[in-house]
Amino acid sequence: MVHENSPVKTPSCSLCNEPAVYHDKKTGRHFCRDHFIADVEGRVADTIRSRNLIVPGDHVAIALSGGKDSTALLMILARLLPSWDTVRLTAVTIDEGIAGYREDTIHSADQMAAKYRLCHTCVSFLELFGGTLDAFLKGCEPEACSVCGILRRKALNVGAERVGATRLATGHNLDDEAQSVFMNVLRGDLPRLVRDSGSDSKGMFIPRIKPLMFISEKEIAVYLMLHGAWADLPECPYAVHALRREVRGMLATLESKHPGTMLHLMESKAKIEAHCSGVLDTEPVRHCRECNDPCSGETCQLCQLKGRLGI
Amino acid sequence: MVHENSPVKTPSCSLCNEPAVYHDKKTGRHFCRDHFIADVEGRVADTIRSRNLIVPGDHVAIALSGGKDSTALLMILARLLPSWDTVRLTAVTIDEGIAGYREDTIHSADQMAAKYRLCHTCVSFLELFGGTLDAFLKGCEPEACSVCGILRRKALNVGAERVGATRLATGHNLDDEAQSVFMNVLRGDLPRLVRDSGSDSKGMFIPRIKPLMFISEKEIAVYLMLHGAWADLPECPYAVHALRREVRGMLATLESKHPGTMLHLMESKAKIEAHCSGVLDTEPVRHCRECNDPCSGETCQLCQLKGRLGI
Repeated sequence: MVHENSPVKTPSCSLCNEPAVYHDKKTGRHFCRDHFIADVEGRVADTIRSRNLIVPGDHVAIALSGGKDSTALLMILARLLPSWDTVRLTAVTIDEGIAGYREDTIHSADQMAAKYRLCHTCVSFLELFGGTLDAFLKGCEPEACSVCGILRRKALNVGAERVGATRLATGHNLDDEAQSVFMNVLRGDLPRLVRDSGSDSKGMFIPRIKPLMFISEKEIAVYLMLHGAWADLPECPYAVHALRREVRGMLATLESKHPGTMLHLMESKAKIEAHCSGVLDTEPVRHCRECNDPCSGETCQLCQLKGRLGI
Repeated sequence: MVHENSPVKTPSCSLCNEPAVYHDKKTGRHFCRDHFIADVEGRVADTIRSRNLIVPGDHVAIALSGGKDSTALLMILARLLPSWDTVRLTAVTIDEGIAGYREDTIHSADQMAAKYRLCHTCVSFLELFGGTLDAFLKGCEPEACSVCGILRRKALNVGAERVGATRLATGHNLDDEAQSVFMNVLRGDLPRLVRDSGSDSKGMFIPRIKPLMFISEKEIAVYLMLHGAWADLPECPYAVHALRREVRGMLATLESKHPGTMLHLMESKAKIEAHCSGVLDTEPVRHCRECNDPCSGETCQLCQLKGRLGI
């Protein structure tokens, strides 16, 4: 209710008379606490339904780093679960071996999985590759994100296979996805732009799904705060990937001045995907001659990296 | 030649021993005056040849605003002309009616056409539409670029038709083209991204060509300076299109930190064009019910605008 004598009018929710806690600049709508949460969860449910991300009988492994995105993903999927019969959830955490950073987030992941009564499996680089990320990166820190990305991709597949999952859900949000579209266009890398849809596994890897792909970073932060689940976790000490960081800043500026920019990027991607499947058809999937995993060249990125790092 | 005693070594041209005047960050090559000019003109000739922009017997109307890009375009085409038998060039200038700006650039265009002994035709908004841009824009200045773009497009077509041209060449450079790719992707406007190639006229308009599409703004500036043709002309007073200006700044930053970004954008566009022609095929070209010009809706943009401006 708006009080006539109050110096500043608190906007009301566009769907009820409760005070608003969030303003969506794209649509101009205001949301109270309950309608904001319902809106976010409803849009995730829509994304899952309209894209068949999860179907009856699925066992979904949630890639739970313990950070904001994956924590919100776990909360939303766990809250949606009762409406899906026969779907199971399990949390999978990767311990890359990053001193002074991973300890806190693994603890947070453990607590979150316990709170929602989910099985929680941890896979470490030490166990899988015989060393920590810190050890592998000695002398090649600038390549941290790409090295870690290749190793973590494999570790997540191993984790998902171990628990018998049929889908692997990651916490990638709208900002991440829009940044990737932007970067792939900036790099002229159309095959990667199309392949990034996560629909390229062709039955050989456990399919990856991104249920938060249309939820912005800001919405995730507000969602966690409204649930009292916001924690100011440390950022990965290696997170200094130059182009991604620049693109992140530029996109945030554009989105704030021209609300809807990130969704427009996703629309561009969807249209390109719909019309450019030919880009991928010309690139047959081969198998790595070392490990037999699917890859685009003769040897997969992981085996090339293993040779280079002496794993 | 590099003198051992000189405090700072002047880099030599990568192709001869002359002192370099330009460093191409993308390739790392240095160019002396003559090799820089030959490189720029050679790349324009390659663009024209590989894309069949100009063929024997063509009469090319150069859209000459008198600004930097169109001046460089005229100089380069005029210098390449002797190697093309049976190709004619004519300059066409549009006088939009912008007080305090157009007078200088029209004077400059006149001098340039005279210097290269080209016929020069001027078409004014006053003559074609019964008023100046300044008059039309009273009260709707924020829309200046889109209003002017629609009117100028028509005026250029009229000018090119009057001189009997078979092609209309504009001075769009690599920066302009990369900005357009960027903006169309940011807007999620794939049909426009593909249509912008200038190959959509389907025989109904005089085909537009952009021979400088792979020459950067910086290269054009250096080219003009080396020819003593650099003039600090005023910028159009209406040039404050928000998204274009922001995108321009962002792309310049990215290009400077990651040389090659603009070319990568052009590669993305080329790949999307090659695979997404279907986007356009689903949009049949219709004819405006007022003027019969080709358009995508029932009434063309110009006729809609005329109604709104009371032309």
